[in-house]
Amino acid sequence: MTPHSESELAFLSVEQAARLLRRREISPVDLVEAALGRIERANSKLNVFLTVLADQARKQAKRAESEIRRGRVRGPLHGIPVSLKDNFATRGIRTTAGSKILADWIPDTDSDAAKLLTHAGAILLGKTNMHEFAYGITGENPHYGPSRNPWAPDRISGGSSGGSVVAVATGMGFGSFGTDTGGSIRVPSALCGIVGLKATFGVVSTAGVVPLGASFDHVGPLARSITDACILFEAVAAEYPRGRKRPDYRKLRASRPRRFRVGVPKHLYFDRVDSEVRGLVEEAAKKFESIGARVEEVSLPRLAHAVEQATNLIVAEASAYHEAQGYFPARAAEYGDDVRGHLEYGHKVLAVDYLHGLAARQEVIADFEAAFESVDVILAPTSPIPAPPVGEKQIRIAGQRETATRAELLRFTRPSNLSGMPALSIPCGFTRSGLPVGLQLMGPKWSEAHLLSIALAYEEATEWHKRHPELS
Amino acid sequence: MTPHSESELAFLSVEQAARLLRRREISPVDLVEAALGRIERANSKLNVFLTVLADQARKQAKRAESEIRRGRVRGPLHGIPVSLKDNFATRGIRTTAGSKILADWIPDTDSDAAKLLTHAGAILLGKTNMHEFAYGITGENPHYGPSRNPWAPDRISGGSSGGSVVAVATGMGFGSFGTDTGGSIRVPSALCGIVGLKATFGVVSTAGVVPLGASFDHVGPLARSITDACILFEAVAAEYPRGRKRPDYRKLRASRPRRFRVGVPKHLYFDRVDSEVRGLVEEAAKKFESIGARVEEVSLPRLAHAVEQATNLIVAEASAYHEAQGYFPARAAEYGDDVRGHLEYGHKVLAVDYLHGLAARQEVIADFEAAFESVDVILAPTSPIPAPPVGEKQIRIAGQRETATRAELLRFTRPSNLSGMPALSIPCGFTRSGLPVGLQLMGPKWSEAHLLSIALAYEEATEWHKRHPELS
Repeated sequence: MTPHSESELAFLSVEQAARLLRRREISPVDLVEAALGRIERANSKLNVFLTVLADQARKQAKRAESEIRRGRVRGPLHGIPVSLKDNFATRGIRTTAGSKILADWIPDTDSDAAKLLTHAGAILLGKTNMHEFAYGITGENPHYGPSRNPWAPDRISGGSSGGSVVAVATGMGFGSFGTDTGGSIRVPSALCGIVGLKATFGVVSTAGVVPLGASFDHVGPLARSITDACILFEAVAAEYPRGRKRPDYRKLRASRPRRFRVGVPKHLYFDRVDSEVRGLVEEAAKKFESIGARVEEVSLPRLAHAVEQATNLIVAEASAYHEAQGYFPARAAEYGDDVRGHLEYGHKVLAVDYLHGLAARQEVIADFEAAFESVDVILAPTSPIPAPPVGEKQIRIAGQRETATRAELLRFTRPSNLSGMPALSIPCGFTRSGLPVGLQLMGPKWSEAHLLSIALAYEEATEWHKRHPELS
Repeated sequence: MTPHSESELAFLSVEQAARLLRRREISPVDLVEAALGRIERANSKLNVFLTVLADQARKQAKRAESEIRRGRVRGPLHGIPVSLKDNFATRGIRTTAGSKILADWIPDTDSDAAKLLTHAGAILLGKTNMHEFAYGITGENPHYGPSRNPWAPDRISGGSSGGSVVAVATGMGFGSFGTDTGGSIRVPSALCGIVGLKATFGVVSTAGVVPLGASFDHVGPLARSITDACILFEAVAAEYPRGRKRPDYRKLRASRPRRFRVGVPKHLYFDRVDSEVRGLVEEAAKKFESIGARVEEVSLPRLAHAVEQATNLIVAEASAYHEAQGYFPARAAEYGDDVRGHLEYGHKVLAVDYLHGLAARQEVIADFEAAFESVDVILAPTSPIPAPPVGEKQIRIAGQRETATRAELLRFTRPSNLSGMPALSIPCGFTRSGLPVGLQLMGPKWSEAHLLSIALAYEEATEWHKRHPELS
């Protein structure tokens, strides 16, 4: 049955859309119009896009339509509208990185990810809102306003890739790319109910992306399903080392393991967690048992301390970049208060503490490597809380003392940035008040194919990914 | 003709000694006794060894003698007495790193280099004097006294591997291993007239060596000839990457290139150089022309500035190690003034400046890589000055204003620690007052085989390596 309504078109899977395009039952123009319709309807309310490329997207759709008509199909993303977070350089298109400092920057060259998406035939709808310079996890931007949660617009989307996540969740395109330095792909994905993948460090080029912490920055896809995420990932992923399997979306289902082991780090990722979040993640663990997993406890004995020790690494790398660019402290007044504060803090970090952090980082890696000797994936909440209200700087979790919302949101995702190992967030339910909750699955280096096939097995046993927020 | 006198035995080449050992014309016992005789005669005056292992060496010599007699020859180092700088951990043998803090440390395990030397059948004569914690280029040690230059005992040997260099220069063993973080192998080699090789970063394991700046530390051989250096290097070098030639001392002569290109960085390595040193290095360049080299100027346009920017890297790494070990600042009073001062300075370096230093380091590498596109090796002085008097903190070079002796001694060697590319020092003459002068040859990464064969060609065209200091 050919989809006709805007929302039917907008919420197709990439695989479905690609099939309909190849059969010429729909045109890229239909997909672009559906996405633009939804942008028109809700962008101003949710603050999703900083730049909408309506004319360019329509032209690209026409071109893709004609290429596909002539049988020149480049692949599953040909004619599929997507967006990019506004820290990916796009040639001739303003790239703000969510900042005032780069408010008028029009790059001369594309980022690698933008080039690869163009090569894959994807259509760029626009550039999405983000936390200023990707330096925050809430998506609250002092210059362009907060990107808002489509399930509850008085709440944050999470960040820093908030706009990209909201675009995907609301059908403003079929996928997007974000960056994840401490959780900026996975946390907003969890808070808005979509899939976000941070793959092995280095497997997706960060060239042409405004860096935050260069040794922690990961580029990755945001999608409404595991298969969509895999298709998007394949378009940008480099070759894998010999003997390691590069993910292939057509093989995810077939390569799904009949038996696999899921590790649950009880003492680390289940303490100080919102009770509804914990309940849903524990349910997910049971679901895994029902689909063939052996679920067992794993310990990561040095992780908590080591992650604490390594905190200074990212802040120092961020401050060094901003100083080298001549942005900070020279133009300190042009930053929002939170980012300026982080940069000031990072500027004071001592080199010896940076080096101690590098040593601690090795302990993080060693702890994960030891755990992955006995399990295929580690299961945990993505965020200890569902989306908090916009502006709520402090939070009380499970009746304990108030802590900084920002720190809590990052708590469960940062370890994987330190390890450089793949991790994804996938929907695992909703709170009673209707907020999405995300499940985080982590795997060892280069295990994306295995990780995605396990995540797909879970997705196929659940219905959460089929719910979409209403645009009022 | 079988050598008989102590000095005939002591100054054999490793190749000659190995041949005589295999033919049973001499015994390892003879070699050890010759070395121990020389140690007895001059160690107290020149301050070469911190620990002499006379009994152990004699036992090892007996065992090697019996093994060789039974035809079980392990290789060219079997039965050859050598020494180790006192920052190489040696199981059951005091390892001070030239410090008061480790004055009583007796390691439980051997450093990798010590293991590999034992495996090769070498005999350990003792542990040599060094700059405290390898943190200085003069070899002046506040706890154990300065190691002294055998050509002029009122002058420094250079450091930090001073004891090792003096041992080799005076026939107290056939070779030694030192460490080079900013020039600590090459500079004392130049000042005392022997060969010192700092190979590609990482090719010789530093495991079990007390670190100075972990990302700059290189372990390498000290020897009286290029062939000896190559034999010692082969005993400890790791496998080479595919397609790169691991040096083989038996092939050095045969693989000597008939035509090769030598680059001379006039503006960087020939400014502010003692006139006698410059003269001798320029003569060496002419000698290269006479043996088939095309000598041409090369430019390293960003090097001077980048090296300056990267200075903070080593000091920060040193301070981080000493802090992590609980040595500094906790036991600050136990350091000599100069090392304590360096540690205090390194402790204040900001992480952002460390990171800027890492960026500068990439420029150093890029400059060298560009230069090595047009030349096989780069030729320069190893040190801008011959050995200065012990205690001389300031120096005037070529009539210019006074500068810090320490900084001048390091000036030409530090770039290769930043680049991680191989560099060696080889004797190229003597000043009118009889002080040795060293020529530095640098090559691109993994080019040791080529670099050594070019150095051997020079050595064979000269006589400098045949002169040895008199022990009074």
